[in-house]
Amino acid sequence: MIDPTGTRTTVASPVGLHRVLEPVGVLPQAATRLDTRRDLWPDEVRVRVERLNLDAASFRQLERKHRDKGGDAGPAVRAEVLEIVAARGKMQNPETGSGGMLVGTVEEVGEHSPLGLGVGDRVATLVSLTLTPLVIEDGLAGWDGRSEQVPADGYAILFGRSIAARLPDDLTPELALAVMDVCGAPALTARVVGQYDDPVVAVIGAAGKSGSLSLAAARAAGAARTIGVVPVQAEAALLSDAGLADAVTLADARDPVALAGAVTAAGGPADVTVVCVDVPGCEGGAILSTTDGGTVVFFSMATSFSAAALGAEGLAADVTMLVGNGYVPGHADYALELLRGHDGVRKLFERRL
Amino acid sequence: MIDPTGTRTTVASPVGLHRVLEPVGVLPQAATRLDTRRDLWPDEVRVRVERLNLDAASFRQLERKHRDKGGDAGPAVRAEVLEIVAARGKMQNPETGSGGMLVGTVEEVGEHSPLGLGVGDRVATLVSLTLTPLVIEDGLAGWDGRSEQVPADGYAILFGRSIAARLPDDLTPELALAVMDVCGAPALTARVVGQYDDPVVAVIGAAGKSGSLSLAAARAAGAARTIGVVPVQAEAALLSDAGLADAVTLADARDPVALAGAVTAAGGPADVTVVCVDVPGCEGGAILSTTDGGTVVFFSMATSFSAAALGAEGLAADVTMLVGNGYVPGHADYALELLRGHDGVRKLFERRL
Repeated sequence: MIDPTGTRTTVASPVGLHRVLEPVGVLPQAATRLDTRRDLWPDEVRVRVERLNLDAASFRQLERKHRDKGGDAGPAVRAEVLEIVAARGKMQNPETGSGGMLVGTVEEVGEHSPLGLGVGDRVATLVSLTLTPLVIEDGLAGWDGRSEQVPADGYAILFGRSIAARLPDDLTPELALAVMDVCGAPALTARVVGQYDDPVVAVIGAAGKSGSLSLAAARAAGAARTIGVVPVQAEAALLSDAGLADAVTLADARDPVALAGAVTAAGGPADVTVVCVDVPGCEGGAILSTTDGGTVVFFSMATSFSAAALGAEGLAADVTMLVGNGYVPGHADYALELLRGHDGVRKLFERRL
Repeated sequence: MIDPTGTRTTVASPVGLHRVLEPVGVLPQAATRLDTRRDLWPDEVRVRVERLNLDAASFRQLERKHRDKGGDAGPAVRAEVLEIVAARGKMQNPETGSGGMLVGTVEEVGEHSPLGLGVGDRVATLVSLTLTPLVIEDGLAGWDGRSEQVPADGYAILFGRSIAARLPDDLTPELALAVMDVCGAPALTARVVGQYDDPVVAVIGAAGKSGSLSLAAARAAGAARTIGVVPVQAEAALLSDAGLADAVTLADARDPVALAGAVTAAGGPADVTVVCVDVPGCEGGAILSTTDGGTVVFFSMATSFSAAALGAEGLAADVTMLVGNGYVPGHADYALELLRGHDGVRKLFERRL
């Protein structure tokens, strides 16, 4: 930590405040620049980076920006990622605000680290790259700038309260990473579903990664009926084949009347509605699809807080609305277990890799 | 409802879909234009408007915009409100997306209205103006454009599922309206507090309207300790005088470390943290102030969904985060009861009128 006189102290903050250079006093995620010094504070862990997994929204934005300038976007995208990491000390797209996650091997463990990791452990970080000090040392020479998967050599720092999960031996790293990327959704879905007796659960965007895992979690947690909502026939066919939902139905989630109608016709309204579609404007439909006393869990980053709050008020809907917290203790292991136990989930994931 | 052939049908939707002109298929709140015809569908109610109470954020935006152009902003603000209502058929500031509420007298009740209102009842609407069909008939001649309180003559339409509360006889309409404007906050706070055993409850922005009512609600619902957080000494003095909190503490809610430190020093971390400050950037501090297993209730419309979701994940904080739904059954009566029972709340409200 930098104390008011500018002296660096040796007291580390479990949430990484001691690594924030600018602006002073904010959390690492809100910082514009982090301290990437190699030496560890006592509760930190240093990871040798193997691959970055850029957030999809971030990568798409970079690709679009440089493609619009003409020519081959790849080298320009690579150059910009290098610039961002060098300038900020972390990978956080200034435009989208998002980061991603990384895979690597534990290189050094501070003596007071509470994470339970050992040198040589192969891990994925489950906290965002937007708050993880990162140094790239190979100029991203092994990456063509054309995919979210970025081979990289360098190092990253984990704080006392960061989350990292050991990669399992029985799954490819790509598959494990894809599961861990969305592992908060099934864990929170299971918790909420468990608070109801024999609930009807509707998952909007049910054929996607977080959606299919949430459906499996809902059933495992005691849902009496699961309803999977998808936007197009092709996804409906895939989801039906996967055998994860008692009913599969088609609706545009941005059309509240159509969505609520589809959920009701499929056995709703829902006691628990889980929103996993990454498009804006789904708040009203999710609320209308949910019965009084029910809960809507919003996992989509496209959710508008005010649209949800004012929407429920405007509909006089007595529903509990949750901001989908990506952290629930044990979430990575739980999601991996669901994948191992459900061929249908596994197939939906594998076709997206 | 307008059916696909453009014919108007006589079937009304309890949420007002039959009054949506553009774009077709959205809920009234998302509509850019509502049908303000005077004749009622069978489950509607028409209210003769007496006064509009513009949302504070909306009024401030209009005032700022026209003040920046120089001269007296009042007439320009009035002209713009008239334009908005004429163009949209409702009062919804296109910039802030917010509306407000209104006071009036029931003029006609549709034969199938479920609201239980009678002609001549003096009511306040508890659903937002952003979804309430509204016609202004007096050109707002009685308003100087310099206050959120807008005397107005005209009419408004309530749907089957709209909420309106009769104004109580023992309070001035201004006071009752100010209470009803924020009545969702104490009701939801009470519900959440009741889910914990002897919880510590922190209210951020505790000297404001929703904050002071939430403090009173927390205590009534069984909080073991209530902590009121305010930004400046003057508010701390007012809140201490009001006797609503076991501890009153000063912190800038946008500074996560300072906020969490202040709450902890005052007896925290909190089991339940209630965010009532209308400034952006309070998500991280609220999460940091809350213990694992606790709940954060966001009532501020300045809350960022992604900042809350990613913030909790980045802090590995196992907290439940609620979107503050402005509707809880019985919320208006409950808030009025709290005000009647607490001189401290009443004084804080009266000095804001």
